Amino acid sequence: MLISYALLEACLKLVDEEGDALNGNNDEFSHVDENGKAQMVDVGNKDDTERSATSSGKVFMSTETIEALERQELKKGDVLGVARVAGIQAAKKTSELIPLCHPLAINFASVDFRIRESYVEIEATVRTSGKTGVEMEALTACSVAALTVYDMCKSMDKSITIEEVKLLEKTGGKSGDWHRTQK
Amino acid sequence: MLISYALLEACLKLVDEEGDALNGNNDEFSHVDENGKAQMVDVGNKDDTERSATSSGKVFMSTETIEALERQELKKGDVLGVARVAGIQAAKKTSELIPLCHPLAINFASVDFRIRESYVEIEATVRTSGKTGVEMEALTACSVAALTVYDMCKSMDKSITIEEVKLLEKTGGKSGDWHRTQK
Amino acid sequence: MLISYALLEACLKLVDEEGDALNGNNDEFSHVDENGKAQMVDVGNKDDTERSATSSGKVFMSTETIEALERQELKKGDVLGVARVAGIQAAKKTSELIPLCHPLAINFASVDFRIRESYVEIEATVRTSGKTGVEMEALTACSVAALTVYDMCKSMDKSITIEEVKLLEKTGGKSGDWHRTQK
Amino acid sequence: MLISYALLEACLKLVDEEGDALNGNNDEFSHVDENGKAQMVDVGNKDDTERSATSSGKVFMSTETIEALERQELKKGDVLGVARVAGIQAAKKTSELIPLCHPLAINFASVDFRIRESYVEIEATVRTSGKTGVEMEALTACSVAALTVYDMCKSMDKSITIEEVKLLEKTGGKSGDWHRTQK
Amino acid sequence: MLISYALLEACLKLVDEEGDALNGNNDEFSHVDENGKAQMVDVGNKDDTERSATSSGKVFMSTETIEALERQELKKGDVLGVARVAGIQAAKKTSELIPLCHPLAINFASVDFRIRESYVEIEATVRTSGKTGVEMEALTACSVAALTVYDMCKSMDKSITIEEVKLLEKTGGKSGDWHRTQK
Amino acid sequence: MLISYALLEACLKLVDEEGDALNGNNDEFSHVDENGKAQMVDVGNKDDTERSATSSGKVFMSTETIEALERQELKKGDVLGVARVAGIQAAKKTSELIPLCHPLAINFASVDFRIRESYVEIEATVRTSGKTGVEMEALTACSVAALTVYDMCKSMDKSITIEEVKLLEKTGGKSGDWHRTQK
Repeated sequence: MLISYALLEACLKLVDEEGDALNGNNDEFSHVDENGKAQMVDVGNKDDTERSATSSGKVFMSTETIEALERQELKKGDVLGVARVAGIQAAKKTSELIPLCHPLAINFASVDFRIRESYVEIEATVRTSGKTGVEMEALTACSVAALTVYDMCKSMDKSITIEEVKLLEKTGGKSGDWHRTQK
Repeated sequence: MLISYALLEACLKLVDEEGDALNGNNDEFSHVDENGKAQMVDVGNKDDTERSATSSGKVFMSTETIEALERQELKKGDVLGVARVAGIQAAKKTSELIPLCHPLAINFASVDFRIRESYVEIEATVRTSGKTGVEMEALTACSVAALTVYDMCKSMDKSITIEEVKLLEKTGGKSGDWHRTQK
Repeated sequence: MLISYALLEACLKLVDEEGDALNGNNDEFSHVDENGKAQMVDVGNKDDTERSATSSGKVFMSTETIEALERQELKKGDVLGVARVAGIQAAKKTSELIPLCHPLAINFASVDFRIRESYVEIEATVRTSGKTGVEMEALTACSVAALTVYDMCKSMDKSITIEEVKLLEKTGGKSGDWHRTQK
Repeated sequence: MLISYALLEACLKLVDEEGDALNGNNDEFSHVDENGKAQMVDVGNKDDTERSATSSGKVFMSTETIEALERQELKKGDVLGVARVAGIQAAKKTSELIPLCHPLAINFASVDFRIRESYVEIEATVRTSGKTGVEMEALTACSVAALTVYDMCKSMDKSITIEEVKLLEKTGGKSGDWHRTQK
Repeated sequence: MLISYALLEACLKLVDEEGDALNGNNDEFSHVDENGKAQMVDVGNKDDTERSATSSGKVFMSTETIEALERQELKKGDVLGVARVAGIQAAKKTSELIPLCHPLAINFASVDFRIRESYVEIEATVRTSGKTGVEMEALTACSVAALTVYDMCKSMDKSITIEEVKLLEKTGGKSGDWHRTQK
Repeated sequence: MLISYALLEACLKLVDEEGDALNGNNDEFSHVDENGKAQMVDVGNKDDTERSATSSGKVFMSTETIEALERQELKKGDVLGVARVAGIQAAKKTSELIPLCHPLAINFASVDFRIRESYVEIEATVRTSGKTGVEMEALTACSVAALTVYDMCKSMDKSITIEEVKLLEKTGGKSGDWHRTQK
């Protein structure tokens, strides 16, 4: 056992050295330090600027469930209203859910739904005047709104799937604006 | 204005009556009452039984980002480790995020990752001895783990997409076991 | 200074002794021990039984605001829908808000509204199969729903007042059922 | 069924058109958009200014309970001390409880009590240097402090009632200062 | 680079094999699986039994600060009262703070203080009727109460130190009772 | 009884008067007002400046446990990785745990570990651009990281002790920089 332990250590040392050589690549993950340990990015030297992010997602369900959802909406039903509230509240909880996210004071959050033939489309927008972007806030709002739609429809349909949760655009910050191209 | 207001009321009354006729369909949403209002399902008459649920999801990213992630893992990096912790903690927070979910004491939660050619695959399992199933807990664990992977890779790649968040199987409870077929 | 300090101590000692004599009265507060210190009541020897509680409250506002709220509801507006979700979620957060409340798994929570001539009436019901009653859960649901109505109407009306937040009835538990008599 | 469904849609369309006509009134709710959907008000264009809000509330209880509470206070008991802490902490949790409230960094929060002949009077003050007012923070502090007093006295008295939770004054912000008149 | 990458992989494979050989030892960490990944222990097969845990801790401070604290307590000051509430609330938040802790419904929590010559001694007791022990709840209560004492005294004294946070005893559960022997 | 009650009041009045005389000393606790009631310090007149704090702590355990922990780390185990995440998240939760702490937006948080012969050493650093210092954030990160190490090792070792949780240094703010001198 002692021998293998020594071997292990020698090996790991080698791995570390090689790892150092690879650091040029590893550096691209801003949330891990040069040893691969998790860290928050230090945003102390960033400016407070106006920032926004918009994300979208889709909740696919059976035709029968989509139709029931449409009837619900016609009848002033609360299904999407509950999901909207859940999404907005989740935007405010993002830094509690995503371990390395910075807490920030958001200025605005909205969550919208469109019922399509086989899915519910969700779009979330979040804005802040802060030191970091609000992509994760917009994506978290979308994901939790999608989970809530799922929860409220699951008694009818167990095969619901959440798809294409993604960033549509972001504005503000040093890296500038970004818009998803076509697709 | 007074006229249109009376018309509105007459109309809504009609809608309500018609809505009642449609109730056979609306009843399928267990989280809204017969008037379309949100409510928690009353689980007081359900038994405490052993229940489990397994869900999965995929985080698609560029080849370059996937490779960086693989190198990270080789180097004992924390990226997926952080996402695992985030997913397990989110499972415990489900009833706080999803408005009509019941709080429940989970017995077990695990989150696993596999790095594929163009995506990270996530699988989450949750178990309880309670009155309600843990589908939402497993799905929330998957979603938040996926968001955390996204957060940690987003400095390299803004086009990351979360796909196919879905239930794989559930066991226990009155409605019995369920397994997703093929696809 | 030294003298007064000794005097203080003598005095406090006297107060403590007198206090002990008064304990027969103080014991009625189950959340403070015999020295007046805060404590959770030990519910380890209580049975898990079916328990329910219903509470109510009123949010008074100007006639103009009440009318705007009614129009909102006619138009499928979200004002009371948002307040309902807030109330249900608050029921689940009760033990986090009220320091000496026990955490418990609620089986059911509902929040209902009626728009009256000069106020919105709120009624909340919570049920559990647990060791402690759910009065505080029902009252917290009412209070937070009332605050949310306030928040959503405050741009129109700064003189809104929350009144008569109270328990209507409780059932279950060793102390038995209780119903509020008339007014 | 099909007929009634078409009728429903026609009717709702009419309602929407009429609703649009009523929009001049509906606009007064800043937390719902022109379609009645919940939204956070965008405060991105508001200035960071010094703002304060003071609210009050009353917890009515039986003479016997009030007297027990007074003896408690004389004996260094923790009843009102616990309620004070609960109120201050609730002020910090406001944006988590009230779905459309903005998160903000408060500079100061205090909660005070006065024991009157038949009730406990609560007054809460909150201050910030932010983009939105702190009315909801002050009102939430009052409400949760009142609920905590209720919780600690409820073993003696089930008929406790929370009354007159209201704003006393606010300062700062574009809409200027506001003071409740008499009454 | 390609060469070193291959070497890395060979090395890690070796490490894994050696690691497997070491598993007899690693298994002792119940919170990591056989690959070293974090996981919650599955408590599904454990019985609900009466369990308790008592922990203690010490907050060392200057003589001047200890004396000020004593005067505070004489004057019905809230310093230790606030710390008590913070400790009790933290016991309820344990599973949110410690990633792999199971959520559980605690029956009782108390936090007590004794002012000694150079430190404040804290003792916390927690009880449950559940599937897992409450050591972490008792220790978290102690730690957060200690941090709160620190916070309230830090304007006087920056050299405060928290020491000897430890378990004193636990009862219940399959592993039986445990009592710390002297020192 | 009436007599003793009057005596009590007289006594308390005396105590209050004496207390007033002692106020010069009591004022040093910034978190209690002149009557000994808990309050948040008003930071409205403080400037937003760059602030940092570094704290440390030690988790003592048996040699056998320390060695198992070292093997874990060699094997890419998650023990300290989980504790790091827990510590960083706790830094963000500080104002929720410590009743009179101000909420603030932290710019950076890191938690590091060194395995020594008989203990794990923890060091946490937090930075902000805000109105209040981040000592409590750094200390809370250390304490919760220490509790998490404890949780993950407790199946092997019940006598683990958390020691020397203390501030190492702080920078920024009106009171200026502070560095702990030697031991």
